[in-house]
Amino acid sequence: MPVITRDQVRVPLDVAPDRREVYVDNYLKATRNSGRLMLFACDQKFEHLNADFHGEGIDPADNDPEHLFRIARQGTCGVLAGQRGLIAQYAADYPELNYLVKMNSKTNLVSTKQEDPFSALLSDLESVLILRDNGVNVVGLGYTIYLGSEYESTMLADAGQLIAQAHAEGLIVVLWIYPRGKAVANEKDPDLIAGAAGAALCLGADFVKVNPPKPAAGTSAEALAVASEAAGRCGLVCAGGSTVDAPTFLSQLHEQIHVGGACGNATGRNIHQRSLDEAVRLTKAISAITLDDASVEDALAVFEGSKEYERQA
Amino acid sequence: MPVITRDQVRVPLDVAPDRREVYVDNYLKATRNSGRLMLFACDQKFEHLNADFHGEGIDPADNDPEHLFRIARQGTCGVLAGQRGLIAQYAADYPELNYLVKMNSKTNLVSTKQEDPFSALLSDLESVLILRDNGVNVVGLGYTIYLGSEYESTMLADAGQLIAQAHAEGLIVVLWIYPRGKAVANEKDPDLIAGAAGAALCLGADFVKVNPPKPAAGTSAEALAVASEAAGRCGLVCAGGSTVDAPTFLSQLHEQIHVGGACGNATGRNIHQRSLDEAVRLTKAISAITLDDASVEDALAVFEGSKEYERQA
Amino acid sequence: MPVITRDQVRVPLDVAPDRREVYVDNYLKATRNSGRLMLFACDQKFEHLNADFHGEGIDPADNDPEHLFRIARQGTCGVLAGQRGLIAQYAADYPELNYLVKMNSKTNLVSTKQEDPFSALLSDLESVLILRDNGVNVVGLGYTIYLGSEYESTMLADAGQLIAQAHAEGLIVVLWIYPRGKAVANEKDPDLIAGAAGAALCLGADFVKVNPPKPAAGTSAEALAVASEAAGRCGLVCAGGSTVDAPTFLSQLHEQIHVGGACGNATGRNIHQRSLDEAVRLTKAISAITLDDASVEDALAVFEGSKEYERQA
Amino acid sequence: MPVITRDQVRVPLDVAPDRREVYVDNYLKATRNSGRLMLFACDQKFEHLNADFHGEGIDPADNDPEHLFRIARQGTCGVLAGQRGLIAQYAADYPELNYLVKMNSKTNLVSTKQEDPFSALLSDLESVLILRDNGVNVVGLGYTIYLGSEYESTMLADAGQLIAQAHAEGLIVVLWIYPRGKAVANEKDPDLIAGAAGAALCLGADFVKVNPPKPAAGTSAEALAVASEAAGRCGLVCAGGSTVDAPTFLSQLHEQIHVGGACGNATGRNIHQRSLDEAVRLTKAISAITLDDASVEDALAVFEGSKEYERQA
Amino acid sequence: MPVITRDQVRVPLDVAPDRREVYVDNYLKATRNSGRLMLFACDQKFEHLNADFHGEGIDPADNDPEHLFRIARQGTCGVLAGQRGLIAQYAADYPELNYLVKMNSKTNLVSTKQEDPFSALLSDLESVLILRDNGVNVVGLGYTIYLGSEYESTMLADAGQLIAQAHAEGLIVVLWIYPRGKAVANEKDPDLIAGAAGAALCLGADFVKVNPPKPAAGTSAEALAVASEAAGRCGLVCAGGSTVDAPTFLSQLHEQIHVGGACGNATGRNIHQRSLDEAVRLTKAISAITLDDASVEDALAVFEGSKEYERQA
Repeated sequence: MPVITRDQVRVPLDVAPDRREVYVDNYLKATRNSGRLMLFACDQKFEHLNADFHGEGIDPADNDPEHLFRIARQGTCGVLAGQRGLIAQYAADYPELNYLVKMNSKTNLVSTKQEDPFSALLSDLESVLILRDNGVNVVGLGYTIYLGSEYESTMLADAGQLIAQAHAEGLIVVLWIYPRGKAVANEKDPDLIAGAAGAALCLGADFVKVNPPKPAAGTSAEALAVASEAAGRCGLVCAGGSTVDAPTFLSQLHEQIHVGGACGNATGRNIHQRSLDEAVRLTKAISAITLDDASVEDALAVFEGSKEYERQA
Repeated sequence: MPVITRDQVRVPLDVAPDRREVYVDNYLKATRNSGRLMLFACDQKFEHLNADFHGEGIDPADNDPEHLFRIARQGTCGVLAGQRGLIAQYAADYPELNYLVKMNSKTNLVSTKQEDPFSALLSDLESVLILRDNGVNVVGLGYTIYLGSEYESTMLADAGQLIAQAHAEGLIVVLWIYPRGKAVANEKDPDLIAGAAGAALCLGADFVKVNPPKPAAGTSAEALAVASEAAGRCGLVCAGGSTVDAPTFLSQLHEQIHVGGACGNATGRNIHQRSLDEAVRLTKAISAITLDDASVEDALAVFEGSKEYERQA
Repeated sequence: MPVITRDQVRVPLDVAPDRREVYVDNYLKATRNSGRLMLFACDQKFEHLNADFHGEGIDPADNDPEHLFRIARQGTCGVLAGQRGLIAQYAADYPELNYLVKMNSKTNLVSTKQEDPFSALLSDLESVLILRDNGVNVVGLGYTIYLGSEYESTMLADAGQLIAQAHAEGLIVVLWIYPRGKAVANEKDPDLIAGAAGAALCLGADFVKVNPPKPAAGTSAEALAVASEAAGRCGLVCAGGSTVDAPTFLSQLHEQIHVGGACGNATGRNIHQRSLDEAVRLTKAISAITLDDASVEDALAVFEGSKEYERQA
Repeated sequence: MPVITRDQVRVPLDVAPDRREVYVDNYLKATRNSGRLMLFACDQKFEHLNADFHGEGIDPADNDPEHLFRIARQGTCGVLAGQRGLIAQYAADYPELNYLVKMNSKTNLVSTKQEDPFSALLSDLESVLILRDNGVNVVGLGYTIYLGSEYESTMLADAGQLIAQAHAEGLIVVLWIYPRGKAVANEKDPDLIAGAAGAALCLGADFVKVNPPKPAAGTSAEALAVASEAAGRCGLVCAGGSTVDAPTFLSQLHEQIHVGGACGNATGRNIHQRSLDEAVRLTKAISAITLDDASVEDALAVFEGSKEYERQA
Repeated sequence: MPVITRDQVRVPLDVAPDRREVYVDNYLKATRNSGRLMLFACDQKFEHLNADFHGEGIDPADNDPEHLFRIARQGTCGVLAGQRGLIAQYAADYPELNYLVKMNSKTNLVSTKQEDPFSALLSDLESVLILRDNGVNVVGLGYTIYLGSEYESTMLADAGQLIAQAHAEGLIVVLWIYPRGKAVANEKDPDLIAGAAGAALCLGADFVKVNPPKPAAGTSAEALAVASEAAGRCGLVCAGGSTVDAPTFLSQLHEQIHVGGACGNATGRNIHQRSLDEAVRLTKAISAITLDDASVEDALAVFEGSKEYERQA
């Protein structure tokens, strides 16, 4: 059971002196004392509208937004990531969860072909701090940047300022960085993914979520290792992508961490499109790998219910 | 007579601690202690210019803006929704009404074909709070989002921030969400309407007003049920649309609530284009269904004047 | 001599409680205790550049900007409307005049064909209040909206916020609303003019200046009556337009008020393009009709100098 | 030796009451107690990049920016106009000069053909006041407006607000107004120049710098007289334009003042492209005409060194 | 060993009076008491994404961002220039270094052909001052302007304001100015480079980094001398450009300083693409020339390890 101690947490120097302990608390909560992040991505309720939550191949339970909170409660994860409003409406009944407030969002209606992507801040930091003042476990913020978009500069400016403000308050920040727009020929190009990871570091993020690279030669995990190193002190986590079968999903995750140097995972659809019971077991299997260095086989046993898992630290 | 009690009101966690009771008061006032919203939409005085208020098939009384206030006084509704300026000019003479300030508006002059729609904030929240300080019963705010417009991001940002600020002050918020713009092929697509409802939840709204979906198969009310569930803790209400005969209108409303899971209604033209007497009776018939679970037959009797109706709670 | 008393002035509820008496003072000053507005429009010094002030058919005196102030001093009007800077440079020598500060302006160089019209705020309200603090009789503000322009949303937002701020300070607000832009086929369409009048009310304006409608059937004044009613508690005044002979001008004004329900007039070129003496007599003739319900004949006698006129209240 | 006294200075009513004496001081300093402005324009160091300061026909001394300050020290002028940064770097060594801070600037790289001109504020007023607090003789501000540009509205808004703020602090303001852009067929059209002068007055400027008009009939100075009158209480000064021989230059200046009603001059290249000695003599010749009503012959004698000149007041 | 004393530092007059000593400290630290700047440019981690840090011809060590800090610690330089976030994540372990925070950045994904370049501020100054409060040696700020871009005005406005604010806090400012965009035919045109240098002065910068000019006749260093003079009291430094062999690089640098009048250098790729040991030796060779007026031969000996170098002052 890998455990990091308070003094192993590196506190960036833009954290205000009187918020250093708050930052350490938040970092340890978000990583469940492991230094690795298991992020349950619920922000696509907005980003993908209802297509990810209702229809063919999706468990009917997923149409009710409370499904997300039930999974998080019964399963194991580091943070539930969602928009401020979603959290505000449910957190009173789920006070024990750690929340990461996704600060910007866009729908998928306007295609990249019509217009380069831009995702606007849905509120300022002050509006998030009210949640914290009201007892919500807000441990950090999330923000999406479409690198290479013609609106890149606005998103970089928003993200840079947000990170500075969040750190000043002792919150951690996760950047979602996706190269996208007319200028981007290949969104999964390994050099581009590594560049995105480095950009996240330069902006001061604590974690960066990227898509798995697709190299011309070698495995995705090998290419990911370059990006993880380029990210330096910013932990890199991979997006889960569309729903695949559990063995494939867990094997990929294991490779991303142990070959690719990833510092965790960020998973949404793969979890919430399942029934409550199955989804809960998947969060435990994922956490077994991410937080406790379980093998793929052990994690699969957790998913199949033949093995118990509970994060102890 | 369905009545909800103070402790049944779910207060979102972005309401400032010292404004929780204010929020509960406003929620109960707006819903007349029913948990359902009967919204009298008067904002089209601006949005549709004078076409909805004067001309063929419209009672001459409707050209005088005071007609709206007279209907609300003599009839039964939860809130009168209108722009800040309209309310400021008449509320001194109609102090007993509940007002919902429609914060943004646009005219219908520039067509979607010419330019994707955008509706700008007409004032900040502070300017609304002055009304409240002056004794106006401002219980909440309204804001329109054209989802899928190329200006979606600005409206999402404005709405997200507005909801945070309004909740901090104990006001409720109703979002009008209409998918519209070059990117939107079918504005009444059921998946899109459900997505819009979910987006309203993620932004933290208390109620969302959508157009009734037009499904390829099944009834509109059945499709609406999916959207209502996707909206989670955000109550969904349907727009009334253009003027139809009262029996049709009341039947649709009954189905929206009892099949579609709607939490109320938002009606404008169907009410105010009639003479004062007829309009007053229609608000009572609508309220009988919305607030008191009346049958369509009983509601029609109220509209025809053969049955009395007064909300008691 | 029509006179309204202090308690007949309806104070909008966005006027701050401690500024109610200031608002009443300003309303009575601007309307010379009549409830009707005689607005001397001097803002075209900026809007039309020098074309309205120098050249063929214009009295040479009009090239000197002080001509405007001399007319206002010797003649009779409710307010002199002009840009903040113009007033700042002359008001020390004309302290007895009532001023309405025109807050936004554009030149006529960029045609509507080249670009839809937009008129930007030339200063904030604070900069106007300094004038008041320095003893200038600033009774209100003016703002122009080009309804239907692609920049409509910015002007609506500016106007809405400005009205809220001005009322909070006890100032009255006059909106100039002109439908204009690629989306507007007929700027004088009666429905459109009536819609503009209603929009001004929704924004909370005290007066709205519109162009006289040109109906397909009936007189302009008859069409104006619909707009006046649609404006509700927002007083409607008509723009004077280009210079015509005095009898025609005074007849039109009389009809606008007594048939069209107008609450006054807004006149510029018709006045200042004349010699000082003639201009002074015209302001008195206009005021005789607007403020004192004079007949056209009596007003013409005032213009021709055969009858004395002085507003007593 | 024309001298105006303190009580002859008209203080605009947007000057804060406790800054009236500061304004009078600044006005008298800038005009050297003459009421006329001799402005040494050094802002083209930025606007024209190095083309005006180095190359064929330009004295080599002009490539060193300190040349500008040396001329101002040894010569005679009212104000040295330059960007905030330039002044900040040299003023410690030239504390006796009067400075006018040019608040906005653009380079000449993007042509009007490519894009209509816009010139952005390089800092806010607060940053200028620090200079004053540090002992720099900042007597006023300058701002350029390209009237008729598609970006006109932003420049009008910036200028209007800047003038209000500057006056509130007791600073004078000089506007440079050049009609330019796709909408402007003839930048030197006399009506347009007169309109620009009137616009400067409406914005509240103390002085306006325009290009000399080119009338179809009559002299430029005669056409200028119309503009000077249209500017009212805003003093009009003419731009010097490209370098011409001294007799031509001084004759034109004399006519601009005595026929055209100009209130001074604004000269750059004609001065600084010469050697230090020659440039110094030219500032004295210009000042002899502008400040002391010298004849062209006397001014030429000053330029040629055969006559002494020193402003006494 | 060239040394300047405290009283030889010219403090611009926009430095707040109580920050003059801070400015002197920062100036002396950044220039290692030499008056010349040896800037180690690490900002391309963001600007060029990972292409400058990984791949063919680049030492593998360069993929780890900490490589940059290791070089700076073991080598000799005036400041390490990098984005705020990068510095925040590493400075706790490298407290002895002087940092220059690069305030704006863009990626290289959107080409100039697709869109004229714009680089947005990644945070405000306050967020940088937190670093200083936390003990980081922030001696100054950097900002990039693409002169001639259609977005030039926004960058000029940001830079102008930033310089004013930074000076008020006692920080020095380095501008990177690159003429670029559709309007710029030849980015290395000597007149343009000289103009850029003069623009930096007018904005108030302490140093300006430009690309070496490519004159039609004469050497680059001779052309640079014109630019250095045009920059006046703003020290000019040259960008290092892409990696070349050390003798060529050091010869060019020597010429830039001793012929071209440069005040230092700004070097990135030439240093960090090498192994730690080689990179360290190169920083010392560069510093020997820049800070201690070493000959090319001596500097080469330092690079080759046959000669010791340590800046003493």
